[in-house]
Amino acid sequence: MDRRSFLRNSALGGSAAAATALAAPAYAQGNRTLTMVTTWGRGLAGVHDAAQRVADSITAMSDGSLTVDLKAAGELVGAFEVFDAVTSGQADMYHGADYYFINQHPGYAFFTSVPFGMTPQEISNWYYQGEGHAFHDELGQIFGLKSFLGGNTGPQAGGWFAKEIAGPEDFQGLKFRMPGLGGEALGKMGASVQNLPGAEVYQALASGAIDGTEWIGPWADEKAGFQEITKFYYTAGMHEPGAGLSVGTNLDVFESLSPAHQKIVEMACGEAHQWSLSQFMNNNGSALQRLQAGGVKVLEFPDSVWDAMGAAAKETLDQYNGEDIYDRLRASYNASMAASSGWIQKSEGAYRAQRDRVMS
Amino acid sequence: MDRRSFLRNSALGGSAAAATALAAPAYAQGNRTLTMVTTWGRGLAGVHDAAQRVADSITAMSDGSLTVDLKAAGELVGAFEVFDAVTSGQADMYHGADYYFINQHPGYAFFTSVPFGMTPQEISNWYYQGEGHAFHDELGQIFGLKSFLGGNTGPQAGGWFAKEIAGPEDFQGLKFRMPGLGGEALGKMGASVQNLPGAEVYQALASGAIDGTEWIGPWADEKAGFQEITKFYYTAGMHEPGAGLSVGTNLDVFESLSPAHQKIVEMACGEAHQWSLSQFMNNNGSALQRLQAGGVKVLEFPDSVWDAMGAAAKETLDQYNGEDIYDRLRASYNASMAASSGWIQKSEGAYRAQRDRVMS
Repeated sequence: MDRRSFLRNSALGGSAAAATALAAPAYAQGNRTLTMVTTWGRGLAGVHDAAQRVADSITAMSDGSLTVDLKAAGELVGAFEVFDAVTSGQADMYHGADYYFINQHPGYAFFTSVPFGMTPQEISNWYYQGEGHAFHDELGQIFGLKSFLGGNTGPQAGGWFAKEIAGPEDFQGLKFRMPGLGGEALGKMGASVQNLPGAEVYQALASGAIDGTEWIGPWADEKAGFQEITKFYYTAGMHEPGAGLSVGTNLDVFESLSPAHQKIVEMACGEAHQWSLSQFMNNNGSALQRLQAGGVKVLEFPDSVWDAMGAAAKETLDQYNGEDIYDRLRASYNASMAASSGWIQKSEGAYRAQRDRVMS
Repeated sequence: MDRRSFLRNSALGGSAAAATALAAPAYAQGNRTLTMVTTWGRGLAGVHDAAQRVADSITAMSDGSLTVDLKAAGELVGAFEVFDAVTSGQADMYHGADYYFINQHPGYAFFTSVPFGMTPQEISNWYYQGEGHAFHDELGQIFGLKSFLGGNTGPQAGGWFAKEIAGPEDFQGLKFRMPGLGGEALGKMGASVQNLPGAEVYQALASGAIDGTEWIGPWADEKAGFQEITKFYYTAGMHEPGAGLSVGTNLDVFESLSPAHQKIVEMACGEAHQWSLSQFMNNNGSALQRLQAGGVKVLEFPDSVWDAMGAAAKETLDQYNGEDIYDRLRASYNASMAASSGWIQKSEGAYRAQRDRVMS
């Protein structure tokens, strides 16, 4: 029995139920509960909120006919087990960062963030109006997933360090937490990179298992408490300039939903992408002020570090060249980023410069 | 009979129907059609698309139990009549730019755009995570509206001119189309400002009734055809740095909807805000290239013009000071804009500068 027929005959409650679900007027009759697993510890600021927003919106819009039961990391499966849990049918959907699954396909990195990649608006342009979502679907066909972006952290901070970074040589041997292709790039700069789920980072930093970490930005980082351990904070980073959060739904489960329920899932995710991004972006400014008032030194990497990061990022992204989907995906991503960036600079960039100049 | 009881007894189809609609389990039983009027001519690029997106999403998510029937400007009422049509109960909801209604209350300007005001991400922060939506609701209580943002044009272009602008003196006597407080500011610079709905701008420009116009940005402007008439195009402007589009629903109608239908309306609008913004931002770059290839001269205003615009904008915004809601609204808006802008500059601004430097 292949995976699909297994799913149709078990997760959906047997062939009779599946047949019922496919009969058009019967779609909305029975209430249904979908289990959502996440890569986030329960209550983790911002990221868990985005998952909860998606779950609650689906439940509310469907009047409970499609109820989403959110299981945080560790409640049903571990943070990094959610991809397998959903593709195997153990859970119905996950909310998480797709770059945790680059071992499944490196193309998944682009749906969270890649080093020197897109800012949030550039991602939205590509995903909602360009080819982005079609590529997400193409990857989903391989693994049996229907995916939507369902959150965004905004441009992430460079992270927390035990001492000031004078140049790229300071990354040699540094034990640093950073997932995705950003982490691979940091490894090429000599760092000993570790990939830990969010809920485990504080303990690793406190115990000395890692020397430093990036997490998200001032607001989420403050909630995580990293300022209690280390005091050097770099606000801009190269690794995640606008990290998308994804909702991956088991494809058979998604296709068994009525068109109205499918649309509810899509809209709940789309709305959450903007809501979540605004949550991070709205809270970061005041959090940074509190961190500074508490003795955190706020810094920017010197140009020499950015230069080394640029070379490492290019080397990292190039190493996957030659795989068909990856090549097409990367080309689409880069072309869209260039077009978006050009207009953003000409409109918002020029306006912002004049507003700062005239109103200061 | 006051307006509310009038509505309960007519627009909702009599007191018996109203009572039925309020009985909890009966909410979802009957199908219902809401009439949406708009300030946009049918098919007007981007803005009509956003209205259609909201309408179609509501209809699809509710499986037709709440169907939205979109009437473009002129099909039921004129573009600028939609506010009265919805508050009087003639139509159920409108999609439009709320700054068309500053004669109702100057606070409505902030939900589209004010000169030297917020960029789109700053608006999202304030609206979805700050106090913005609460102020929109406070204005709605006066007029009997429940409002949501349901689209955003992105930062708007400075507009189309018959000749190059050398300094602020070139605005003296210029017959220019610009709505909202931006238009009032331009008037203080000596321009003869006209407020025309989008569908009427081309004809006014072609006939010489106006010397120039702003509309939205390269993509929507190209679709409108202004490049056929005039060739000097200023890409950045002070007047609408991130124009929100609003959905205003008759408050009695909204309150008569089931909680699930209310949530569907809210999410459809929220999703459309991002979808619409991405549509404009994704299409502007390539449109600008086509305009340039067709002989349009792309320019930026000199600093002397921006300085004069800044003084005129401040004078315009100050003239409404002293009205309670306006004062609180403006203070909230300005505080949120400053906080958002600071973090955006520190994160996305610093990142973008490094990406441009390293990757060029």
